[in-house]
Amino acid sequence: MQKKKVVTIGGGTGSYTVLMGLKKYNLDLTAIVSMADDGGSTGRLRDELGVLPPGDIRQCLVALSKETKILRELFNYRFESGQLKGHSLGNLFLSASEKKAGNFSEGLKMVEKILNIKGRVLPVTNDDVKLCVQLSNNKILKGQNEINHNFNLQEKGIKKIYLEPKAEPNPEALEKIKKADLIIIGPGNHYCSVIPNLIVKGISEAIFESQAEVVYICNLVNKKGYTENLKLQNYVNSINNFFEKPRINTVIYNEKKPSAELCEKYENQGEALIKMEKSKNKNYIIKKVDVLSEVQAIYSKADSISKMRSLIRHDSDKLASELNKIISK
Amino acid sequence: MQKKKVVTIGGGTGSYTVLMGLKKYNLDLTAIVSMADDGGSTGRLRDELGVLPPGDIRQCLVALSKETKILRELFNYRFESGQLKGHSLGNLFLSASEKKAGNFSEGLKMVEKILNIKGRVLPVTNDDVKLCVQLSNNKILKGQNEINHNFNLQEKGIKKIYLEPKAEPNPEALEKIKKADLIIIGPGNHYCSVIPNLIVKGISEAIFESQAEVVYICNLVNKKGYTENLKLQNYVNSINNFFEKPRINTVIYNEKKPSAELCEKYENQGEALIKMEKSKNKNYIIKKVDVLSEVQAIYSKADSISKMRSLIRHDSDKLASELNKIISK
Repeated sequence: MQKKKVVTIGGGTGSYTVLMGLKKYNLDLTAIVSMADDGGSTGRLRDELGVLPPGDIRQCLVALSKETKILRELFNYRFESGQLKGHSLGNLFLSASEKKAGNFSEGLKMVEKILNIKGRVLPVTNDDVKLCVQLSNNKILKGQNEINHNFNLQEKGIKKIYLEPKAEPNPEALEKIKKADLIIIGPGNHYCSVIPNLIVKGISEAIFESQAEVVYICNLVNKKGYTENLKLQNYVNSINNFFEKPRINTVIYNEKKPSAELCEKYENQGEALIKMEKSKNKNYIIKKVDVLSEVQAIYSKADSISKMRSLIRHDSDKLASELNKIISK
Repeated sequence: MQKKKVVTIGGGTGSYTVLMGLKKYNLDLTAIVSMADDGGSTGRLRDELGVLPPGDIRQCLVALSKETKILRELFNYRFESGQLKGHSLGNLFLSASEKKAGNFSEGLKMVEKILNIKGRVLPVTNDDVKLCVQLSNNKILKGQNEINHNFNLQEKGIKKIYLEPKAEPNPEALEKIKKADLIIIGPGNHYCSVIPNLIVKGISEAIFESQAEVVYICNLVNKKGYTENLKLQNYVNSINNFFEKPRINTVIYNEKKPSAELCEKYENQGEALIKMEKSKNKNYIIKKVDVLSEVQAIYSKADSISKMRSLIRHDSDKLASELNKIISK
């Protein structure tokens, strides 16, 4: 039997979690990754070398490696001194590959071959773009870093999210979307990781037109001043707005409550669990399931993926099990 | 049938050539690599990060990779701008692995696993050492770079070659030598790549005591003021001097003459073909064979291995064929 074709659409950490679970099944996996990151080591490499952002791609490669543990340790290793300070090896690796091949996608193909990657990791675009947000007051925020750390984003209201300059889609990404059996959108930073895929020319259209089941995995918590008080339905509508007509078939919503203690800890930082409205909807099925990670924390100084994980987070295996049910229908 | 165990002892370029040929045979390959390099990107990494020299190891990894072409392109890629300028990706990769693992050998094991290497690449020592040469006038040259570029080395005479501080051998290297069926010494930079292996404590002793056939592959040309006028027998004796008694069983000597034009070009740079004395010897067999590369030149800006090759050089396949005859006896 031919393997089912599954495409994830997102950024680094969220897609990493989904892929880590899915790779245990016999699936044809493709990660389509947004290219709007411009912070930290990634930002410096973009500035100094004029390369595309490697950070999110790096995490997806680690997830799809046959040697995830070792590759994670190496790729997430950050130099601690000298002129290399702060650069992760994985970012340097991807930037060198891009430079060598003359194109991010071609460089990535070389990397996938050498590292024995189970599946494909595709940048949503090969263009060098900046993520921009136009606020209701017409002020424009430029760059993921500025958008992510603008704590009044929500209060000021978002008028428009766009890429500058307009991005051409990676043709391979379009191809994979068109042939997919299952397309998974999210989880991940809503404005900075998930949406930046959908605003690349042709991507939303390809998703809309594909025969795939489209699943949206909702985040677990809202961020103060950023997605504060957004409900599940707001998220889904926000994504569906990028399509000609609503296209999401199924939404995975975590119904398992973290401990009261943990919730309180989050609330003290202005982060609350995402709730769902009780209103009926006819557009999509909401699967209320337990997809919460029981692992309370993994912190490791040298491992940026672990550092980036919240304590309230998705469980890879539980997510994959739900997704597998959907695709095995 | 159990694979024959073959160990190469040398530096980067010479061992690369031997391994590229040998990997086409069904052999258990180990490259033992000198750790005395301190020039260029390698030197900067040693200074800034306090790591061991990755350059020669990198070349052997490339040779033993299942994807040599791609890995060579990526690992030999040197950043061209910014703070990373001049660093090869392979060097950064190995240095990060050492830092992450806390030890060069352990880091290298991670790299071998990720890159799917056919065989093992072992540093002759895990100690941070400097190659030193004491001249007859008692002047001391420190560092490969200084030794390599001291054009009066020969005129002044070498009294002693040593490592500072004294290096402990890599136990895995000792183990591989002890169990080897065939040990290949050279080709490579005589004082800076080949001998630096033999002066690590215990290495010469292990070679001497092993049951292996010991083959020495002589270089093709002498370098002005460095190995000028050395004959085949001088090379062999120079190596044999590191053993309790002469230990080399077989010497591979190229008898095929390059074109007169090419020889002249070399001679103009003070580099002449290595000759052999006619005197009889009873210590070792000299195999006079054609192991000369017919390829006249491969130059590529981004590929340091190609750049480093002389036009008069060994042919990987011809060498491997001769070595295979020896081991199949």
